[in-house]
Amino acid sequence: MIPNWLMQRAYLTPHKTAFSFGEERWTFWEMKDRALQLAGKLKGQGLASDSRIALLGSSNPEMVFMIQACLLADLEIVMLNSRLTAEELQWQVKDSKAATVLVQDSLRHLVHPNLPVLLFSEVEAGQSMAHVPQELWGPDRTITIMYTSGTTGLPKGVRQTAGNHTSSALSSVLNLGLEEQDVWLCAMPLFHISGFSILVRSLLYGMEVRLYEKFDAVAAAEEIRQGTVTRMSVVATMLNRILQELEKQDQMAHPSFRTMLPGGGPVPVNYLERAAERNMPVLQTYGMTETSSQTATLAAQDAIRKIGSAGKPLFFNQIKINGAHAAGDVGEVLIRGPHVTPGYIGHAATEDPLRDGWLPTGDLGYIDEEGYLFIVDRRSDLIISGGENIYPAEIENILASHPAVLEAGVCGQAHPEWGTVPVAFIVKQGEVTADTLTAFCEERLARYKLPKAYYFVNQLPRNASNKLLRRELKQWAAQQEGHGNLERSD
Amino acid sequence: MIPNWLMQRAYLTPHKTAFSFGEERWTFWEMKDRALQLAGKLKGQGLASDSRIALLGSSNPEMVFMIQACLLADLEIVMLNSRLTAEELQWQVKDSKAATVLVQDSLRHLVHPNLPVLLFSEVEAGQSMAHVPQELWGPDRTITIMYTSGTTGLPKGVRQTAGNHTSSALSSVLNLGLEEQDVWLCAMPLFHISGFSILVRSLLYGMEVRLYEKFDAVAAAEEIRQGTVTRMSVVATMLNRILQELEKQDQMAHPSFRTMLPGGGPVPVNYLERAAERNMPVLQTYGMTETSSQTATLAAQDAIRKIGSAGKPLFFNQIKINGAHAAGDVGEVLIRGPHVTPGYIGHAATEDPLRDGWLPTGDLGYIDEEGYLFIVDRRSDLIISGGENIYPAEIENILASHPAVLEAGVCGQAHPEWGTVPVAFIVKQGEVTADTLTAFCEERLARYKLPKAYYFVNQLPRNASNKLLRRELKQWAAQQEGHGNLERSD
Repeated sequence: MIPNWLMQRAYLTPHKTAFSFGEERWTFWEMKDRALQLAGKLKGQGLASDSRIALLGSSNPEMVFMIQACLLADLEIVMLNSRLTAEELQWQVKDSKAATVLVQDSLRHLVHPNLPVLLFSEVEAGQSMAHVPQELWGPDRTITIMYTSGTTGLPKGVRQTAGNHTSSALSSVLNLGLEEQDVWLCAMPLFHISGFSILVRSLLYGMEVRLYEKFDAVAAAEEIRQGTVTRMSVVATMLNRILQELEKQDQMAHPSFRTMLPGGGPVPVNYLERAAERNMPVLQTYGMTETSSQTATLAAQDAIRKIGSAGKPLFFNQIKINGAHAAGDVGEVLIRGPHVTPGYIGHAATEDPLRDGWLPTGDLGYIDEEGYLFIVDRRSDLIISGGENIYPAEIENILASHPAVLEAGVCGQAHPEWGTVPVAFIVKQGEVTADTLTAFCEERLARYKLPKAYYFVNQLPRNASNKLLRRELKQWAAQQEGHGNLERSD
Repeated sequence: MIPNWLMQRAYLTPHKTAFSFGEERWTFWEMKDRALQLAGKLKGQGLASDSRIALLGSSNPEMVFMIQACLLADLEIVMLNSRLTAEELQWQVKDSKAATVLVQDSLRHLVHPNLPVLLFSEVEAGQSMAHVPQELWGPDRTITIMYTSGTTGLPKGVRQTAGNHTSSALSSVLNLGLEEQDVWLCAMPLFHISGFSILVRSLLYGMEVRLYEKFDAVAAAEEIRQGTVTRMSVVATMLNRILQELEKQDQMAHPSFRTMLPGGGPVPVNYLERAAERNMPVLQTYGMTETSSQTATLAAQDAIRKIGSAGKPLFFNQIKINGAHAAGDVGEVLIRGPHVTPGYIGHAATEDPLRDGWLPTGDLGYIDEEGYLFIVDRRSDLIISGGENIYPAEIENILASHPAVLEAGVCGQAHPEWGTVPVAFIVKQGEVTADTLTAFCEERLARYKLPKAYYFVNQLPRNASNKLLRRELKQWAAQQEGHGNLERSD
């Protein structure tokens, strides 16, 4: 059994800072009081224990309190990505059968009018009902559900249990350590596991989270320079921008800044070298929604010696390469451990994420003779753009639904800022322009998923059995680099 | 499932120091290699997986490697206390049905000649058999068995599982933190949970253990002053002697020395004040064999403000007071958590240590309005002497078996160095002297259990139903303080 995180933490270290936001700060006791009050109001709205709600908000205190309130009210939270379109959100809410969508007032416009909505202000203004939070949670209790797209293009709701989140935080502390003065800067979205897992660590460790509503490279660089934060999670592009800020004024990371944790894809060597010059320890990490954050992490001292490696597994995890007989053999990366999801909800509920007890990641990799993991290739179709996962099939399905499109093939193209961006190859069956297709997609896809270039071709590369040859498509895209007709603007 | 501690740690941080002893040091990789080699030799002796052995050794590298080898060889270890007499040891070995007694050569004389013995040197000289250690352990797998006496005086073998030890180490790290340079000085016996738990933490944290065969106040003070160790477990009397050493030369604890963890009974206020003057953070702790080390710990900053408190539970644990309705109500202390033993072996195997899911400790205490635990009285009969638990019933049984003794009552008496020592009240039925009784007991009881004074009386204090009034006995002992006829000499 696992103690209710917030209730236990507020009891153990009531006066420690739980999180700060701008000039404001809250202790664990204050957080618990506020969350308990809100939990009573959620109960007043008739939300029964163990029911499921969807939650849409930004990374601000209101949202943090609402997350904690949902946990105290025994609700399963479907964490909605605020960058998705109304249609995408609607699909997830319906698939998850969420009783209602809890929405921060300012984001009301993102939600389809047909969906049942409960605004944060409505909860606040409503009646309260007495509620005593559970003291202990079973390890299999669902805490969060995050949608991630599969190869079919249909997003799947991944269950992240109390046991998953807890063991992830414990594995991480055995790797990163924990100091009295630790403060974790959170500028990753809370609806992603990268952001949410920081909140979990905070409760287990009794550690302050320094929360930012949006990533701010200038502010982050300043906190790192002054040592007012000691850890930070980023994606590569954020790391680059922070380094640029430090470089501008030839400033170093403060000696007490101990961990820059970049996830969501490989970090360019150039960034690693520049970080080393700024005395900034960078610990590259490999994780995914299905593993409630990090599975493997590379020690800072190995960053250059083991360039390109995702490191070794964290203590409670195991990694192996499917079919490998010797060090260096390439195969699908398989993961096992208490942090691996027990499964999905909704349309994918009957799918078992495991194969013989291991999670097949779809990523190709190898383990070297010292036991370090190297990811050779993300699952061939996956595009990681600025830390967001994009599945070509989802975009192709949308494009193919346009009357003037006969066939569409989507793949990633290198991009100086985002690492990779999606681009589309189109076989027309009528007149259509890139602008028209962009407008068409904008109604149906989150901005970051919009193809950044359209290439009109006579046919797509296919094999004898008519299967799209994605590797060949990527080669085409590489040849076209710089000739795109649209720039990403988010 | 829990990864095999040593195999996983040697894979993750092979080059870090696992432990040092005098001038020698071993990395986790070296420790694993040595333990694997020894495990093969244990297999060569025909010790099947999941069988049980008893282990008798001192706190030296040989013993550490043998412990690790037993774990890799899938053996359950009955940790024998080298301070016990041959008779006491024999009783435990028989009760546990251990297949053999693994004995460090120099301790051979402690073991009854009737018992099956395997000397460390015999293992070393023997044939090896191929053996692949288990990669994962079930949480219920028994790692160690430690005997602890109950109120009946018959020692009970307490099972400490992989889950118990692991969650204990994890709870502790969430409380104490973990730093790259951490080194834990171990001068507690490895056969006690206070010492053994340091080895477990070392494997989970990737942390160096600085091992001493015997407690050495001068050396410990020097390591603390120089900052070559950062944590240490002690009992009150050891703390006092270290403080005396620092005081002699007016030296301070090094700023990187972060935790002095005294267990096994209350710490005198005077020690706490003196420690504060030496910049030594003292975190008083409350734990027992049945909870695989700490259950509650008092933060250093609360040491003076909450004098006499054992602190708050560690993150994964719960503590409550039986029958208490309000803060301050005194009752039996009850403990729950993943660190609590699932039960006993041997004659007590059918006893359930839990009552309604909680471990009754027999100790009386209360929780104050801020949630801090205070132990008011150890279970009335328990004597804690220099960190060793002594159960009067065991000594009384021995004394009563002497032909000239009609009745015997044993209780604790305050002692300047050991906190408490046992003393005996005797109703004679013939001529007998204190010296005779001492000689009689020496053959049957560990030195630390020997009564330090004998008081010959006409009758023992009993109630109407003839039950021995232990509280009254203690008052008698208090009145006799300083008039004893024997001094402790171990």
